Amino acid sequence: MIKVLDHGYVHLIETFGHGLAGQPEAGIIEAARQSTQGSFRGWDTDVKLLRHLWRNSHMTPFEFCGLIIEVQAPLFVFREWHRHRTQSYNEMSARYAPLPDVNYMPTQARCVPDASNVGNKQAQGVTDRVPTPEEIEEWKEMVESSYRLAEQAYQRGLKIGIPKEVARIPMPVGRYSRMRAAGNLRNWLHFVQLRSDVNAQWEIRQYSDAVGTLLSQLFPQTWEAFSE
Amino acid sequence: MIKVLDHGYVHLIETFGHGLAGQPEAGIIEAARQSTQGSFRGWDTDVKLLRHLWRNSHMTPFEFCGLIIEVQAPLFVFREWHRHRTQSYNEMSARYAPLPDVNYMPTQARCVPDASNVGNKQAQGVTDRVPTPEEIEEWKEMVESSYRLAEQAYQRGLKIGIPKEVARIPMPVGRYSRMRAAGNLRNWLHFVQLRSDVNAQWEIRQYSDAVGTLLSQLFPQTWEAFSE
Amino acid sequence: MIKVLDHGYVHLIETFGHGLAGQPEAGIIEAARQSTQGSFRGWDTDVKLLRHLWRNSHMTPFEFCGLIIEVQAPLFVFREWHRHRTQSYNEMSARYAPLPDVNYMPTQARCVPDASNVGNKQAQGVTDRVPTPEEIEEWKEMVESSYRLAEQAYQRGLKIGIPKEVARIPMPVGRYSRMRAAGNLRNWLHFVQLRSDVNAQWEIRQYSDAVGTLLSQLFPQTWEAFSE
Amino acid sequence: MIKVLDHGYVHLIETFGHGLAGQPEAGIIEAARQSTQGSFRGWDTDVKLLRHLWRNSHMTPFEFCGLIIEVQAPLFVFREWHRHRTQSYNEMSARYAPLPDVNYMPTQARCVPDASNVGNKQAQGVTDRVPTPEEIEEWKEMVESSYRLAEQAYQRGLKIGIPKEVARIPMPVGRYSRMRAAGNLRNWLHFVQLRSDVNAQWEIRQYSDAVGTLLSQLFPQTWEAFSE
Repeated sequence: MIKVLDHGYVHLIETFGHGLAGQPEAGIIEAARQSTQGSFRGWDTDVKLLRHLWRNSHMTPFEFCGLIIEVQAPLFVFREWHRHRTQSYNEMSARYAPLPDVNYMPTQARCVPDASNVGNKQAQGVTDRVPTPEEIEEWKEMVESSYRLAEQAYQRGLKIGIPKEVARIPMPVGRYSRMRAAGNLRNWLHFVQLRSDVNAQWEIRQYSDAVGTLLSQLFPQTWEAFSE
Repeated sequence: MIKVLDHGYVHLIETFGHGLAGQPEAGIIEAARQSTQGSFRGWDTDVKLLRHLWRNSHMTPFEFCGLIIEVQAPLFVFREWHRHRTQSYNEMSARYAPLPDVNYMPTQARCVPDASNVGNKQAQGVTDRVPTPEEIEEWKEMVESSYRLAEQAYQRGLKIGIPKEVARIPMPVGRYSRMRAAGNLRNWLHFVQLRSDVNAQWEIRQYSDAVGTLLSQLFPQTWEAFSE
Repeated sequence: MIKVLDHGYVHLIETFGHGLAGQPEAGIIEAARQSTQGSFRGWDTDVKLLRHLWRNSHMTPFEFCGLIIEVQAPLFVFREWHRHRTQSYNEMSARYAPLPDVNYMPTQARCVPDASNVGNKQAQGVTDRVPTPEEIEEWKEMVESSYRLAEQAYQRGLKIGIPKEVARIPMPVGRYSRMRAAGNLRNWLHFVQLRSDVNAQWEIRQYSDAVGTLLSQLFPQTWEAFSE
Repeated sequence: MIKVLDHGYVHLIETFGHGLAGQPEAGIIEAARQSTQGSFRGWDTDVKLLRHLWRNSHMTPFEFCGLIIEVQAPLFVFREWHRHRTQSYNEMSARYAPLPDVNYMPTQARCVPDASNVGNKQAQGVTDRVPTPEEIEEWKEMVESSYRLAEQAYQRGLKIGIPKEVARIPMPVGRYSRMRAAGNLRNWLHFVQLRSDVNAQWEIRQYSDAVGTLLSQLFPQTWEAFSE
């Protein structure tokens, strides 16, 4: 399990793509070799084919490997994640079971607009103003109070018998939820390409980087070609 | 523009599917007739073909018509909507521009668990208790306070220079957002089938019903086959 | 390996969907339980949940299992197969390597229009005429000759140096090719639903039935719910 | 109608993406402006936004325009085309109606392997041999004979009452068929990127170039950004 942010994680459930050879990533080579009726020969020779596939955007063989993970992340992160329409999702639902009171609180450092202009400029503050450490601390307390009141309203609604699916409306987008996500290797590489990019929101980048760490361990040959 | 809930709407932007014949829905018939090399002959005779397609689940011809709409809805509705991975979306983003302070507040009636057990039982209250009108009123005021404090924290964050993408974390899932959604007719019919169902959350059903109203006006032959 | 038609087969390469529990199909239950924060409890109790999911068209949990196969089939079968746009394919390519001279020849029985009107009427003969056994035998010889001449033209083209991708043009749609296909369980069930149907072409039905046999062995709980 | 190869064509049926502004391509800008709550301002200013979207791979706004065409092409071209799983297809079917006897015959020049090594080397001849004009002519006659015999076998099968779906098995992959294809602008640009590439088979490149010609006329602002 890879810890992410203050209360989140990325947890490996399962991979596939061993092919007939029964080795990680061999499924890619075996799929590619369908076109010429060959099979997996070992990475000594096949690493060259794998790089050739990647460099020439022959992407379908990478659909023959895949990864299933469990993720705990704030709702606003899931909102961005779910725009990737080629993955499969099953998420906790406040319609069916009350969501635990776990919320995201950014660090001091995260609350300062990026002075060096790394990252997405549009996503920065509405002014060029840089908040003082005291202002940030005070703001975080304000957010904490807001989280607390939202939770009280939620619990009160549940207690008096408001339908769960209605009682959830005050819940903040900083609230943690949990899901399973499944995708093939081609999908996941595309996800990391977009979401580990400097223009992506910092929070989802932390999750994307964690996915990248898993990929580098589970699909090392592909990861090396991808990282070049 | 069709009004939905207290502050939402579904607004028609554009349709397609007129085919060479230049008539609404003719694109379905023309696509289906590719298989036998024919063309659109007029609804007098072609309504029979259209029903045959629908009844026998020949769905690809229905991909040759489509609908683009603009939707204003609470975040929790969009969360469900975006699970439909065959539509295209572009949504307002609090990363790039502050979201207006418009929030969903359910009616009294909506806060009472469904006594007649119509609708999804799992989504009802955690107990069998039915809240009194006074309890509901008091709860709605509590939600209102929670909305207000969340907005204050959000505005304060923006004011002191917290990055917009971070300042949004206290925002409630009852907050309204806006998007464009595009899909082909096959997708939209599937959407309505699932989301106008009695098991769907009541709020998204109102949107789905509004989409259904548009479909019945814009694609009347298909809608009739669908509704049988 | 399951033999299909005169020279084809369906061959299991790999499955996924064991989840954390490490048992076939447990991935479905674990994905579904995300919504209520539970885990796999064993089929004694969970078979009920699985049937509930299937009957109520909660299909996303079935995307957390999958199957990869190798298939040898005539080109006209692959042409129908590839209309399923949610699977992944890698096929032998006559652009890159000459295709072996293996072709489909139907049995006598297959050449007789379906007198009992089972199956797709439109796909039957252009007249109501039923061919005699002698006529069928003579026709099969004619097809054999046609196959032979096509192969000669193909080989002659290759020999004199015509580009492989051009030399293939006389090749018949009855020629066998080979591919790997990957899909999740939801996709595969939908495939079998459409292609084991009496309206599907008999040849692809044989392949679909073979896929069904694999599914019934590898995902028995789901198969039982599907077959009811 | 744009003529392609000896008997093929690409024919415009319909476009969409005019948005509320009612101007070609305005739908892209309007979709993108959802994120900041703006609308279409005219190309004088908005061409800059369009290029920004393209260069930064913000691709979803390009899903709000689209193109529907009719295509006549040889079966081997459709086999490659249908690998694009994000388009919608309806094709003539030999299951339901006999296919006309129209077949592809390459020119002399097309039969010579590419000496300059432009194009895909793997797709060239099995040897380095360059056929003489006489050899090519003789080969083309052989293909012609093969086409003729295949057609005779096909017609004979139809005449004696063999089911249409079986009678077609000798049909060559050089046989022309016809389809409608629908896709959004993002899909079509990706199609042209892959299929007008020098590594794509020459025949599908001619179709892809014809699609490109349509796109450049119908979506000129996007085409310019794409072509840079």
